[in-house]
Amino acid sequence: MENFTFYAPTYFDFGRGTETHVADLIRQFGGSKVLLHYGGGSIKKNGLYDRVVDTLKKADLPFVELGGVKPNPRSGLVYEGIELCKREKVDFVLAVGGGSTIDSSKAIAAGSLYDGDFMDFYQGKATVEKALPVGTILTIAAAGSEGSPNTVITDEKTWIKKGARSDLLRPKFSILNPELTCTLPPYQTAAGATDIMIHVCERYFSNTQEVEVTDRLCEAILKTVIYEAPRVIENPDHYEARANLMWAGMLAHNNVCGVGRIQDWASHHIEHELSALYDVTHGAGLAVVTPKWMRYVLDKNPDKLVLFATRVWDIPLDPGDPKATAQKGIEAFENFLKKIGMPSTFDEIGAKKEDIETMTDKLLKTKKTEGNYVKLNRDDVIKIYESCI
Amino acid sequence: MENFTFYAPTYFDFGRGTETHVADLIRQFGGSKVLLHYGGGSIKKNGLYDRVVDTLKKADLPFVELGGVKPNPRSGLVYEGIELCKREKVDFVLAVGGGSTIDSSKAIAAGSLYDGDFMDFYQGKATVEKALPVGTILTIAAAGSEGSPNTVITDEKTWIKKGARSDLLRPKFSILNPELTCTLPPYQTAAGATDIMIHVCERYFSNTQEVEVTDRLCEAILKTVIYEAPRVIENPDHYEARANLMWAGMLAHNNVCGVGRIQDWASHHIEHELSALYDVTHGAGLAVVTPKWMRYVLDKNPDKLVLFATRVWDIPLDPGDPKATAQKGIEAFENFLKKIGMPSTFDEIGAKKEDIETMTDKLLKTKKTEGNYVKLNRDDVIKIYESCI
Repeated sequence: MENFTFYAPTYFDFGRGTETHVADLIRQFGGSKVLLHYGGGSIKKNGLYDRVVDTLKKADLPFVELGGVKPNPRSGLVYEGIELCKREKVDFVLAVGGGSTIDSSKAIAAGSLYDGDFMDFYQGKATVEKALPVGTILTIAAAGSEGSPNTVITDEKTWIKKGARSDLLRPKFSILNPELTCTLPPYQTAAGATDIMIHVCERYFSNTQEVEVTDRLCEAILKTVIYEAPRVIENPDHYEARANLMWAGMLAHNNVCGVGRIQDWASHHIEHELSALYDVTHGAGLAVVTPKWMRYVLDKNPDKLVLFATRVWDIPLDPGDPKATAQKGIEAFENFLKKIGMPSTFDEIGAKKEDIETMTDKLLKTKKTEGNYVKLNRDDVIKIYESCI
Repeated sequence: MENFTFYAPTYFDFGRGTETHVADLIRQFGGSKVLLHYGGGSIKKNGLYDRVVDTLKKADLPFVELGGVKPNPRSGLVYEGIELCKREKVDFVLAVGGGSTIDSSKAIAAGSLYDGDFMDFYQGKATVEKALPVGTILTIAAAGSEGSPNTVITDEKTWIKKGARSDLLRPKFSILNPELTCTLPPYQTAAGATDIMIHVCERYFSNTQEVEVTDRLCEAILKTVIYEAPRVIENPDHYEARANLMWAGMLAHNNVCGVGRIQDWASHHIEHELSALYDVTHGAGLAVVTPKWMRYVLDKNPDKLVLFATRVWDIPLDPGDPKATAQKGIEAFENFLKKIGMPSTFDEIGAKKEDIETMTDKLLKTKKTEGNYVKLNRDDVIKIYESCI
């Protein structure tokens, strides 16, 4: 096990009706003037927007608002948010939405207390040293941004999607009411479930030996999603299944499943190029990429894929041919993704063969290899993209 | 799933050599005058005491000290600590030791900012509204107090062992260096592993339905301990096994294994009376009580015991006789405890049949029943104690 630090100080308020606590929580964490940040029309259609606004007004908590966050959130709106926060002397950012809205909120929170260009944080030119506090009301089980220190933004100048990370960006509180996710369409639900699983896989596929406890936690979350996601797709109003999926989504990405070892993240980075270029739903892009990544690395480094097969998918170990066991695990995973309605090819997500070189160039612009479980060079990445066709 | 809140803001610094960070961490969390609180001679014998003192001195961090914490920590020393903190204007309590030292530190931290008798918090007469910040350097994987809001103190006037709980008592930071646990004797190590397992069991045995994700996390921790504890007993210097056990101990009690449902805690409360009366090592007392509790509740409520057998102990389900399956799970648990050197009877821990009535009276002094998975009345508790003879 590697040395590590773990610090996850977000206050979670989980369950039915918890969004009514939002004003109290903002005050508890020091907010007195709020930026209410959200995405498209869904929270206006389903009444959540009205309820939140009403709660803030009743609590005499002044706020300004900025809607319009798009999936794969973009730099343009972040600049707008930063300007608004500075002008209006906002001291708390409330994200109401999914991972994109929360990621955009984190960018605004960090950028508002920074003199330079906030994209410096995403381009590795600066680290976050202070940030406005962020709170969230989550509306989809997927990105895990509600409990993570991470944020991903697409630079609208270059269409490059980049991440930043700071414990200062962990939300002060996150309100998780599974009822709010019951109106999500099956495709978004399934893409979210996929994202949750791959957040775990990026941490599970590690060469660091002897991290049994973290392995077991990863398997616990994966098993939960395998059980709950189909129940939610079948019955979108299933509160209990939604609740388990929602909490699993937080645990998958607050790094409790990752501590003590070197993590991979090749699938995510390979997928980010797809999202940036075609505006693919992140989870759907991962559903295409990750099984192909598994098939590709199987020959080079089978061990963890064997464990994945036996412990996560209950495939009996064939001691004479552990690779065959691993292969069955990958197949089980592919079948699962298909069952919940996820794509498996470039065609299904509108990606094009002729962009593979460009995506690979962007991916490897500042590094020679990608990932850690198997270090992928340019050729490897191209082959993985090609196997997605 | 029940509504819940989860807030675990402790900063964990985990791994080899991390105790050298202690002065920096104290400063980071606002400490400028420290109470160094510890137990008996072990940290003086193994050099940890000297290293900590040296680190504080080199950092020019003034401190006063109070040693002498005993297992099943007592009220007398807490009063002494509170007086010392008030007199010396201490603003940070550093616990160097195991669960007893940390629990005693939490009591001092809360009592130092309270005008009344600190035992009010343990007798349900007052709730903690403020407390000095606490940091820890952990020396045994067991109690989980390093990441929990809990503290248990034995009142020396009445020899009643009582718990208090407040998120304000969660340590600000905890330093977990598995190397520090390598000198522990096998019996203490095994008792610690047992305590970890029962912390999970108290949360696992719940009647709240549909908390799949929390069930899976519980099973993950139990499986880890089942794998790692025998490796540590066999080879006390096994760093990796010690590391997994140490992190499992934190996760077993920071309540990530308990959220979303009504928990049990009968075994702990039944055992507390043994510890209070005979000064039994808590984990050893639990090794006697918990399997007997399982056997006793099996007839009344078998469901979760069946899951415990199949998922934790890999007992194949006998669909025609699930109770037999559950029974095999309990047997597997008993055999495991025996294998790691834990006691299973009153005799082995010096407990006496003739005290059963007294212990039961103390246990049920302020309530009619104990536990939740099965609500135990006076007769039930007596029968469980009797089955330990």
